[in-house]
Amino acid sequence: DTEEYGKVINQLVAANDPEEIALLLESLPVVQRLSAWEHVRQPARLAILLAMRHDARETIIREASTQELDEIFQGIEAEDLVELAETLPNRMVDRALAVMDAKQRDLFKDALQYSDDCAGHWANYRLLVLPVNAKVRDALRLLRREIPDHADTIFLVNRMGYFTSAVEISAVIGSPEHINLIELADEDCVAIDGNEKVLDAALKVEKSNFSALPMVDAQGKLIGRMDLRTACEVIREHYEGQLMASAGMDEEEDLFSPVIKSARNRAVWLGINLLTAFAASWFIGLFEATIQEVVALAVLMPVVASMGGIAGSQTLTLMIRGLALGQVTSSNTKALFRKEVSVGGLNGVIWAIVIGIVTYHWFDSILIGLVIGIAILVNILAAAMSGIAVPLALKKLRLDPALSGSVVLTTVTDIVGFVAFLGLGSLILV
Amino acid sequence: DTEEYGKVINQLVAANDPEEIALLLESLPVVQRLSAWEHVRQPARLAILLAMRHDARETIIREASTQELDEIFQGIEAEDLVELAETLPNRMVDRALAVMDAKQRDLFKDALQYSDDCAGHWANYRLLVLPVNAKVRDALRLLRREIPDHADTIFLVNRMGYFTSAVEISAVIGSPEHINLIELADEDCVAIDGNEKVLDAALKVEKSNFSALPMVDAQGKLIGRMDLRTACEVIREHYEGQLMASAGMDEEEDLFSPVIKSARNRAVWLGINLLTAFAASWFIGLFEATIQEVVALAVLMPVVASMGGIAGSQTLTLMIRGLALGQVTSSNTKALFRKEVSVGGLNGVIWAIVIGIVTYHWFDSILIGLVIGIAILVNILAAAMSGIAVPLALKKLRLDPALSGSVVLTTVTDIVGFVAFLGLGSLILV
Repeated sequence: DTEEYGKVINQLVAANDPEEIALLLESLPVVQRLSAWEHVRQPARLAILLAMRHDARETIIREASTQELDEIFQGIEAEDLVELAETLPNRMVDRALAVMDAKQRDLFKDALQYSDDCAGHWANYRLLVLPVNAKVRDALRLLRREIPDHADTIFLVNRMGYFTSAVEISAVIGSPEHINLIELADEDCVAIDGNEKVLDAALKVEKSNFSALPMVDAQGKLIGRMDLRTACEVIREHYEGQLMASAGMDEEEDLFSPVIKSARNRAVWLGINLLTAFAASWFIGLFEATIQEVVALAVLMPVVASMGGIAGSQTLTLMIRGLALGQVTSSNTKALFRKEVSVGGLNGVIWAIVIGIVTYHWFDSILIGLVIGIAILVNILAAAMSGIAVPLALKKLRLDPALSGSVVLTTVTDIVGFVAFLGLGSLILV
Repeated sequence: DTEEYGKVINQLVAANDPEEIALLLESLPVVQRLSAWEHVRQPARLAILLAMRHDARETIIREASTQELDEIFQGIEAEDLVELAETLPNRMVDRALAVMDAKQRDLFKDALQYSDDCAGHWANYRLLVLPVNAKVRDALRLLRREIPDHADTIFLVNRMGYFTSAVEISAVIGSPEHINLIELADEDCVAIDGNEKVLDAALKVEKSNFSALPMVDAQGKLIGRMDLRTACEVIREHYEGQLMASAGMDEEEDLFSPVIKSARNRAVWLGINLLTAFAASWFIGLFEATIQEVVALAVLMPVVASMGGIAGSQTLTLMIRGLALGQVTSSNTKALFRKEVSVGGLNGVIWAIVIGIVTYHWFDSILIGLVIGIAILVNILAAAMSGIAVPLALKKLRLDPALSGSVVLTTVTDIVGFVAFLGLGSLILV
């Protein structure tokens, strides 16, 4: 291990991209991560912390000395402190605010007006702004000073600071100096609202042809912008979050969380699933006598449960994606329901026959084949219906279908499957 | 439904963003989608088709007349045809090539040199390029003509067309006209290789501070660029793909695929899972006699299977993310294994006790409680180990852990769980 660790340290010292160093640090167990951190030179530390996930970042910040943190905070900007504030203890945030320049401090307070699922919380404050009556020559003067990353437009504001329109830098460069900028305005550049959900805002930025969109408050005042890079990160974090949520985990989960913390985080999900498993067991228990007489039923239970679970998760996954993209609405739910039930019916019939025949040969009993065939058909149909209904219901209850969809769905398909299978068994076989 | 459909048509006519119209069209059942398509005005049609997913796009292209397609192909650019070529029948691609201008046709052929999981296939050809000895005045002249979207740098090439360096537009604007561009070069702007995996290239672009990175061929010749918007799409599609893969589906799956096609796509996954379910059943069948004597074992089987499956999927999900980000490497696999087994051991002991006690009270038997407790501990430990080992093994076999990881893992945890539980049961209880 020591040799391998030495290799990582060499990679780390050689790397000069903060994102790359952040990924390398995250990939190290905590003790080694902390000693590797000592190899990171000071000016890069803030950028690296910003690039790390919350949980991994916390392992470093917790061990950092006050002096080290003070050095990191030197000249920190509002949007970076917004990001760090999630991880920092309150007294450290206050400390950072104390050394911050007054304008950045105000911006930080503006950002905190918005909750962290709103676009306004994540605004970028490096803007190219000019008054609405400015001319091309003013724009050229502005551009000669500094152009922030991912800025391809200049935002025009009126005297009250309200956003009026945007002008592409490319339009400015080719135009005579005396032209009014407003004549060059690009109508396609529409502002996003700071109160919008941050994912919706990010998708708007991704779909636009601009490298950033202006952001306004409820009154229309220009408060910042969201650039394409931030949008890209927001979208990636959303999907990573969904992936992790499907296993009951958090997007911030560190590869090397402390064992106790990690066990505790996951225990909740195991506990919830245990309740549903006991529920399924309870339903099976209703048919104890039947099982004792026809043990084949117990043997075949996993087949019934598995087919329902898989079919349901397919419909559910399609729904989760559709809901996230806003493609599933009241106007097409019925049609979608019809389609999924048809797919379920078709697959249900086909697999009922296949499984029925296999079972008939295995246990040499037409009746057991019949019972499992019907149970499979019933369960796949039920799976298709709940695959549509469960995420819609969860969404109405303001729960995330990506997180709780699969556990609810599996409960439904397990119980429907076992009851159909064992119930039919006790009617037909006993 | 007709009223709801009318609303969508109104939205569609009002929308002027191709991405938005594409999402609306995808959300419609196929018949309505085709009639809605008639409401889309011609100049936007190409952009909308490009924004749609493959399967949904196909439903429209299949029904389009040759004349309509010819209109759509007017003035099509290479990179757009690369995207469409996935969906178009070969003879239509030839038709499009026939009307294409010669330069674009060559670019199209260049792109097809790269397979579709390589960055080169998805290159963008709208570049700002100047010879390496150009001066600021040449750059300003170039910028006055046209700046493509998401271009914040000018690429410098030598006489052979090899990429040498990049200069930020913002550096150009502020500089005196006689300066050599090479003096302003930004060393951080490194080229990506057309042969690189497209996801890796996209992550590089996302992490860079540029709106696009230059792309070179194996010899270092500048062949195009990848911009941040494309990178963002590639990343989003990757994650959407993983989400869909976890249910055995394709990222291109259309919300309203024809029932038969959809059923066929999903049947494969159901079939694979059926095999694993039958395998689990076969192992249960080994203990028929035991089950007949102690039916409680059959009743409790879902609890053992569920706890193993959930614990395993948590480790697996962490691994899938780590592998995708390149954070799981030979240097930390052992440490990760130790950590996950510790988490599994801790949760295993806790839940073994909880489940043991509940079972003892339910069936009034200390021995059954003991049997299930041990089985739970064994299964959660096995789940943690296979959660690490299965994705690593799949990766070595060049299979996608996001697609096949869960099915392999569930098979392991089902079989280990049932064998441990029923095996112990037959030793201790019978």
